[in-house]
Amino acid sequence: MLTNRQIKLINSLHSKKGRIDNQLFLVEGEKAILELVNSKVPIEFLVISDWQAAKYTELIKQVDVYIEDETNITKLSSLVTNTFGFAVVSMKYFSFDLTYSNEVTVVLDGIRDPGNLGTIIRICDWYGVKQILLSPDCTDFFNPKTISASMGSYVRVNFQYQELAEVFESNPSIPVLGALLEGSDVHSTKFPNSVFLLFGNESTGIREENMKYITQKVTIPRYGMAESLNAGISTAIFLDNLKRN
Amino acid sequence: MLTNRQIKLINSLHSKKGRIDNQLFLVEGEKAILELVNSKVPIEFLVISDWQAAKYTELIKQVDVYIEDETNITKLSSLVTNTFGFAVVSMKYFSFDLTYSNEVTVVLDGIRDPGNLGTIIRICDWYGVKQILLSPDCTDFFNPKTISASMGSYVRVNFQYQELAEVFESNPSIPVLGALLEGSDVHSTKFPNSVFLLFGNESTGIREENMKYITQKVTIPRYGMAESLNAGISTAIFLDNLKRN
Repeated sequence: MLTNRQIKLINSLHSKKGRIDNQLFLVEGEKAILELVNSKVPIEFLVISDWQAAKYTELIKQVDVYIEDETNITKLSSLVTNTFGFAVVSMKYFSFDLTYSNEVTVVLDGIRDPGNLGTIIRICDWYGVKQILLSPDCTDFFNPKTISASMGSYVRVNFQYQELAEVFESNPSIPVLGALLEGSDVHSTKFPNSVFLLFGNESTGIREENMKYITQKVTIPRYGMAESLNAGISTAIFLDNLKRN
Repeated sequence: MLTNRQIKLINSLHSKKGRIDNQLFLVEGEKAILELVNSKVPIEFLVISDWQAAKYTELIKQVDVYIEDETNITKLSSLVTNTFGFAVVSMKYFSFDLTYSNEVTVVLDGIRDPGNLGTIIRICDWYGVKQILLSPDCTDFFNPKTISASMGSYVRVNFQYQELAEVFESNPSIPVLGALLEGSDVHSTKFPNSVFLLFGNESTGIREENMKYITQKVTIPRYGMAESLNAGISTAIFLDNLKRN
């Protein structure tokens, strides 16, 4: 049984403030928890539903486990449906210092939707891109929806929140390729080994103040009529073209 | 002011049954409505919030408009936030008979998430693919979340729900390229002019019974560790590779 203090802690992790104050976050649902147990990331404690506990006796041996009924699990979870359980995980394991030389860095300018960020993390992991730089106003990497949408890839992609201008100015020799609706064709773009790939906010795009750091505008050619593609799709198309080069 | 009968009708359009019974669906939010007004799709009637009505006097002249306060709009809307309004639209305008010769057809086997379907519609529209074939258990094309996620592209992409086996068997000369985790590399695939591009369900993939119709298994090469890519991302990567061929 969870103590009242633990219940309060878990509820606090639904908000960014609570996550930062406690340096903890939630990993929810069966698949995500099983992946977590198989990773090197340490788990503070696990909350699992009573009807699943018997099935996961091996899992239970490895970490501190609290058994609750399905109603309580659902109440404490941030997901609409979670009858399995969740893990409380420390942020400590996650590296925050990126280096940019000989690295492809996906740079996100004001991405607000946690699901989009999770999808982008998953795409980076698919294409072997190891790091994401985020402007400070991007949605929280540890938002439960981000963690969930990343499908386990959050353990393999490093990230850092920083003013993008600072990073671009400290790394003047590294090209900044901006994903825009106009520019050179991504299909014929030569991607350097060290590169920033800059993607903008879902509706407002790349901020005006960051436009001046772009060394090459790159666009995904459009063959039909849609006005735009979302940030996740754009990231995937860029990385697919980068890798097939 | 809306009549009680109209309110009942609008609420019924939140469910698939209500949409089918009435042959109507909802288009919600400012951007979607403005696009709709500029398209050829006829609008049955428009419900708009009182504080927006003044701004859209031109719009209001063109269709039957009911003005409601923001609270009522939000109540009647299927979206979490919609303080602008919505349109009630007839399905009649939408074509349901696809022909497959000399066409790229995106085929979806059991796509369940309305947001994913909307994203796929948007991607098809970006890449100039004009038609989507859906297995009967796919999520509803006219689900408000699908319409919303398609960002207006739903007016430009034809679709049909049909048993996939029937279509494949009636068109034996048209190759079926299946998106799978194993197969030939999408980067070196030659895409025929007439082609079915088959994508599976978000978690279970392409149904076993449809696997036998696949003439070529095609995969997106993976450079990292993520287990899979979602259906929207896969569709985008396939179409990008098809177009750059």
